[in-house]
Amino acid sequence: MRKLINAPADVVSDALRGLAAAHPSLRVDAASGTVRRADAPRPGKVGLVSGGGSGHEPLHAGFVGHGMLDAACAGEVFTSPVPDQIIAATMAVHGGAGVLLVVKNYTGDILNFRMAAELAEDEDIEVATVVVDDDVAVEDSTFTAGRRGTGATLFVEKIAGALAEEGADLGAVAAAAREVNERSRSFGVALSPCTVPASGEPTFELGPDEMELGIGIHGEPGRERVKAGTAAEIVDASLSAIDADMPVAGAELLVLVNGMGGTPLIEQYVAYAEAARWLEGHGASVVRPLVGPFVTSLEMAGCMVSVCRLTPELTRLWDAPVQTPALRWGR
Amino acid sequence: MRKLINAPADVVSDALRGLAAAHPSLRVDAASGTVRRADAPRPGKVGLVSGGGSGHEPLHAGFVGHGMLDAACAGEVFTSPVPDQIIAATMAVHGGAGVLLVVKNYTGDILNFRMAAELAEDEDIEVATVVVDDDVAVEDSTFTAGRRGTGATLFVEKIAGALAEEGADLGAVAAAAREVNERSRSFGVALSPCTVPASGEPTFELGPDEMELGIGIHGEPGRERVKAGTAAEIVDASLSAIDADMPVAGAELLVLVNGMGGTPLIEQYVAYAEAARWLEGHGASVVRPLVGPFVTSLEMAGCMVSVCRLTPELTRLWDAPVQTPALRWGR
Repeated sequence: MRKLINAPADVVSDALRGLAAAHPSLRVDAASGTVRRADAPRPGKVGLVSGGGSGHEPLHAGFVGHGMLDAACAGEVFTSPVPDQIIAATMAVHGGAGVLLVVKNYTGDILNFRMAAELAEDEDIEVATVVVDDDVAVEDSTFTAGRRGTGATLFVEKIAGALAEEGADLGAVAAAAREVNERSRSFGVALSPCTVPASGEPTFELGPDEMELGIGIHGEPGRERVKAGTAAEIVDASLSAIDADMPVAGAELLVLVNGMGGTPLIEQYVAYAEAARWLEGHGASVVRPLVGPFVTSLEMAGCMVSVCRLTPELTRLWDAPVQTPALRWGR
Repeated sequence: MRKLINAPADVVSDALRGLAAAHPSLRVDAASGTVRRADAPRPGKVGLVSGGGSGHEPLHAGFVGHGMLDAACAGEVFTSPVPDQIIAATMAVHGGAGVLLVVKNYTGDILNFRMAAELAEDEDIEVATVVVDDDVAVEDSTFTAGRRGTGATLFVEKIAGALAEEGADLGAVAAAAREVNERSRSFGVALSPCTVPASGEPTFELGPDEMELGIGIHGEPGRERVKAGTAAEIVDASLSAIDADMPVAGAELLVLVNGMGGTPLIEQYVAYAEAARWLEGHGASVVRPLVGPFVTSLEMAGCMVSVCRLTPELTRLWDAPVQTPALRWGR
C-alpha cells in the first residue's frame, strides 16, 4: 500500500505540524512530540495526560481539549513515547491539583509512564496512573503482559476528563477512570494488515478469504485466523467474546463501533446495525452509540467493538460537553 | 480487499439501519433510502435536500441536521438516487418556503434530480437546484459532462444550510450555494483503487509505485498516472492545478484536506501540513482548516484538497452552528 507521507522518519513530526496548523486550540511542541490545550495549565484543575505510539489517530492528540485530555504525547509509530515526553507534558499541564496519566497496557508504555511518574514525583507533582486493559481477545500478547488497552481508552479519557473539568480531585478522577476501565470490554477483527512506514512490510499476511479475530491495534496476532465472514458474523464473534467475559444482559451500554483506519464509514455503519441488533437480542440496551474511526491501526481494515456498562453518573459524565478535534458535543 | 458487509445487495440498506440506530436525531426511511432531520419539515424554512450514490460517507446523510441538510437520498453504491427518492425527501422536508436541491455534477444525478424537480413543481413545491462542479482535474469524464462535483459539496451544504437556518428565502439560499461553488475548487489523488461491492473488482489497477492524479470519487480516471510521490509532491500537484484554475494569492481560504476513505488520519495531517505550507508560500491565508474523511470513495487511499475563497459573509455562515453526525460545532 502506498502512503501519503514524505519520509518514514518524518511521519510523526509532519503530522504534528499538520495538527498544529489545523487546530489553533492546541499547542503542539513538535520537538518534544507533545500536544496540549492552549489553556493549560488550569490552576486547581487535575491535569489529564495520555499518549502512546502514533498510528492510532485521532487517539490521543485528537482528544486534547475542553472536557477530555490536557495533553498527549506522540511516540513514533507503534512505539511508546519516552519518559522525557511524558514528563514534559505532565509539567506543562500541572495546575497544582496533580496529574492523571492514562496508559494503555503495553509493556513499553507501562515502563515509560512509570519512569515519568517517578520523575514527576521528584518535581513534587502528585501523579496517579490508570492502566487501560479492556481487550478480551488475549491474556498476553507480543506487546503486553495482561490484556491490551484499546477502544475503552476513549471512554476513560472522555469520562475522567469530564470529571476533572468539573473540579474533582485527583483521587476521584482516578477512581472514575478505573471504574470505566473495569466496566468496559473490547474485541477487534482485522480484514487486512497494516504497514508501519519504517518497515515497509505488512505486519502480517492474510489470505484473500481470511480474517483475524481478536486483533490488537498494532497488527499483533489475535485469537484465531478464520475464514472471512459477514458483518453479522464478525459482530457476533466480537460481542460473544465480550459477553462471555462481562455479561451485557440488563446493562445500559455505551457502544463504540470503531473503524480500524482503512474501513470506510459505510461499512462501520453496517457493523453498527449488526451490533445494535445483537445487543438488543441479548437483553442489553444501547443508550449511547458512537460510530467512527477513533482508535485506529494505520490503514488496517476491520473494526473493533467496545462496550461500557454505564451507571447514571457515568452517563452524565459521558454527556458532558467536550470540545476536541475528534470528539465534540455540548456547549 | 475484504469488506465488512453482509451481502453486496444489502450494503446501503444495512448501513442506513446502522445510521438510524446510531443517530436518534435522524429519521431514516430505509425503504425509500432517505434520511431527514427529526424536526423537518420546519414551517417557513427553506428545505435543503441532497443525495447521490452511496460509498462517499459521511456525505450526504452524515450532513443532515441543524444548520446543514434537511434530507439526503442514498443511491446504491456509486449510483444516483432515483427520482422517487428525491421527490419523497423533498416532500418530507418542504415547510412552505421551497426546497433547494444540491446536486453533484454527474450525468445520472443531474437527470434524476431534474426529474424530481419537475415532479415537485407538479406538487406546487417551489424548487431551486444548484449543481456542484468544483473538480478542476478534468473537463469531462466517464461519469460527467463538465466538471465533477466533489469536496466543495460539503462547503455548499454547510454554508447554504446555515443561511436557510437563519430564515433566508429560497432565492438567497440558492444564490449563496452557487456563490460557494463558484469560489471553490478541488483536486484529488488516488494511491489505491476501491472496489464496488457488487462488482468485487477494483475500479482500476495501480502499480505499486504509481498514483493517479486528478482522480474522481468513483475511481473514474484522472488526469494522469505518474510515479508515486511524497506528500509534498502530491499536495503541490493538487494545489498547483487548483491555483492555475483559480489563483489563491491574496485569498482568505477555507481548506479541506479530505481522506478518500482508506488513508489513515495521520497521513491526512501530513498532507494538511504540506497544504498549509504551500498556501502560505503562495500568498494565501488559510482562515478555516478542516482535515478528515468527509467525501470518500469507499476504501480508496489518497486525498483530495478543496479550497473556497471566503468572503466575510461566507466565513460567518461557515462558522454558524452545525449539529450533524459528521460536522458539529457551535451551540
